[in-house]
Amino acid sequence: MSIINKAAAIGGGVIGAGWVARLLLNGIDVSIFDPDPEASRKVGEVMKGARRAYKQMVPSGLPREGKLTFAKTIAEAVADADFIQESVPERLDLKHRVLAEIDAHAPANAIVGSSTSGIKPTDMQVAMKKHPERLVVGHPFNPVYLLPLVEIVGGEQTFPEAIEVAKEMYASIGMKPVVIRKEIEAFVGDRLLEAAWREALWLIKDGICTVEELDDIMRYGFGLRWAQMGMFQVYRVAGGEAGMRHFMAQFGPCLKWPWTKLMDVPEFNDELVDLIATQSDDQAHGLSIRELEKIRDDNLVAIMDALSKQNKGKGWGAGALHKDYTKQLAKLAAKKPTASKAAEKAKAGKPVKKAEKPKKKKKG
Amino acid sequence: MSIINKAAAIGGGVIGAGWVARLLLNGIDVSIFDPDPEASRKVGEVMKGARRAYKQMVPSGLPREGKLTFAKTIAEAVADADFIQESVPERLDLKHRVLAEIDAHAPANAIVGSSTSGIKPTDMQVAMKKHPERLVVGHPFNPVYLLPLVEIVGGEQTFPEAIEVAKEMYASIGMKPVVIRKEIEAFVGDRLLEAAWREALWLIKDGICTVEELDDIMRYGFGLRWAQMGMFQVYRVAGGEAGMRHFMAQFGPCLKWPWTKLMDVPEFNDELVDLIATQSDDQAHGLSIRELEKIRDDNLVAIMDALSKQNKGKGWGAGALHKDYTKQLAKLAAKKPTASKAAEKAKAGKPVKKAEKPKKKKKG
Repeated sequence: MSIINKAAAIGGGVIGAGWVARLLLNGIDVSIFDPDPEASRKVGEVMKGARRAYKQMVPSGLPREGKLTFAKTIAEAVADADFIQESVPERLDLKHRVLAEIDAHAPANAIVGSSTSGIKPTDMQVAMKKHPERLVVGHPFNPVYLLPLVEIVGGEQTFPEAIEVAKEMYASIGMKPVVIRKEIEAFVGDRLLEAAWREALWLIKDGICTVEELDDIMRYGFGLRWAQMGMFQVYRVAGGEAGMRHFMAQFGPCLKWPWTKLMDVPEFNDELVDLIATQSDDQAHGLSIRELEKIRDDNLVAIMDALSKQNKGKGWGAGALHKDYTKQLAKLAAKKPTASKAAEKAKAGKPVKKAEKPKKKKKG
Repeated sequence: MSIINKAAAIGGGVIGAGWVARLLLNGIDVSIFDPDPEASRKVGEVMKGARRAYKQMVPSGLPREGKLTFAKTIAEAVADADFIQESVPERLDLKHRVLAEIDAHAPANAIVGSSTSGIKPTDMQVAMKKHPERLVVGHPFNPVYLLPLVEIVGGEQTFPEAIEVAKEMYASIGMKPVVIRKEIEAFVGDRLLEAAWREALWLIKDGICTVEELDDIMRYGFGLRWAQMGMFQVYRVAGGEAGMRHFMAQFGPCLKWPWTKLMDVPEFNDELVDLIATQSDDQAHGLSIRELEKIRDDNLVAIMDALSKQNKGKGWGAGALHKDYTKQLAKLAAKKPTASKAAEKAKAGKPVKKAEKPKKKKKG
């Protein structure tokens, strides 16, 4: 199993900071680069929320946190990292500049993951002159420190070995890697999200419902199903004794009915933005983003914890993973002395192995 | 608050039987009509599953179950009902025949709910010659006995008062009614589901992922979010300190990117059905539909129970409702003697008030 010894995060927005939080809480040192003068405060806020959630997950005590360093350049951030996660805005020119810089200065054996929600790795890795073969998309879901899913996508130049190592590295920090079989824009998660989002915009724009009503329709309805089984297995069960074929025969024809507006894209103008933003303010019922964030995190921890006790105690889906993850964190906490300066120093001085290509490392 | 004194269910498939289970477990007598010779066995199976789930929800003991009667005709089933739920297959001609029959024989003040996933009530109520004004769509989500959501939609002839009474009746059996503001095909829930389903079929057909991988992407990722906050509030929080407007500005443009295949419909041929059915078999890992159903129900109860303890103990979303619902069931159980034949008889003989139009009834 490949593990992460030293990580670098390029970009400290909501997603980048979420990665930083997950890594630090797993006891891994992280060097971050973000030109935003507010970066330190923003990462601190995310870290505070993540620490709070993890304390609920592992009441017996958390592992010693990794050390966070703010680097002045990308070169400095990636210098001794074996895992680098890029989370800069979704512009191909920016991704190219950042990845070229990472590639030029990172150890040759480091894995480079991109948080992009939709850009194809093949289109990004052309900017990497030295080792394009170690780029993978590692697309997470917000909040990164809690949601386990990471979509792994390789480009034309990506080595299968790099995908394997990335998979193990993400799994080592409690995640559920799903390798996408063929490279397409937006991969799988964001295709489904975009489809629903586009339809949702139509429904709001046409006054069929408000954002609060639409959200309620999700969270009192199919959202509860999808937290534990995806749509295919849900439909398999819904098919009753006759199963999937019966379900498909029954619902196949609706595809031809006028049940969606998907043939067109709503115009994304100020009026629509205003409508949605205003309705969203109403929906919040005075709760601040920070308060909503806490509620969201508490809910996610509670759901995963509840699922961890299902399936005859073996746990189910994200709950089974959650069970293993919290056990792993507790074990790590038991092993390491809490906040030992000496241990930190010793760790910082540990040499990082270098190699020409990504290769599997055995857990120490 | 209008409550249901005596219910009729027309159609006993997965959805119809789910309604029967919810009603009976709330202590309400139900008369069902379904021409399927297997109907009794099938409803019995669903009832067994529902009873099992409800026992977990209310460990202190369930209310005395309502009495289930199998009627030989629609006329017999609806004769003394004040709430009638139609759950026959999605064919307009069939809906017309069934609704005409219900309308001809039901008490004038009875509310008629249709479980249709997408047919407009205006198109259905033309078949009701006596009281089309009391038809509403009451679209539930499977499993009906557990998922709280019911979309209520009125047609052109529906009285606002009927919508109000229906809303109260559904709420009285632990549901979350959401009234859809404008009548459209497939309402809100199934528009979102259709959008995601259509995209999912493309992803499977094109070999981007298998049904198991797609399901994992949902249940380890955004499914966990949607069980407690819908997409708009999730995105509000994801926008970070800048909130919804920031999020919209950032993600608005992706609508124009080639992130979905939604402009077209995949051909629904045998090849696609085979591909999906085979992958679905693999995904089940040998678990039967019944076993999966139990797991699903246990998971749903556990998730709602977990959410009932959040938000400083007040409960959140479906969890807050679940808290009230389980309390209500426990209270009902404490009031009524268990399985008293005398009480059953007394109840069966109670006269049902009739009125010309749907009107609000006070809780007895």
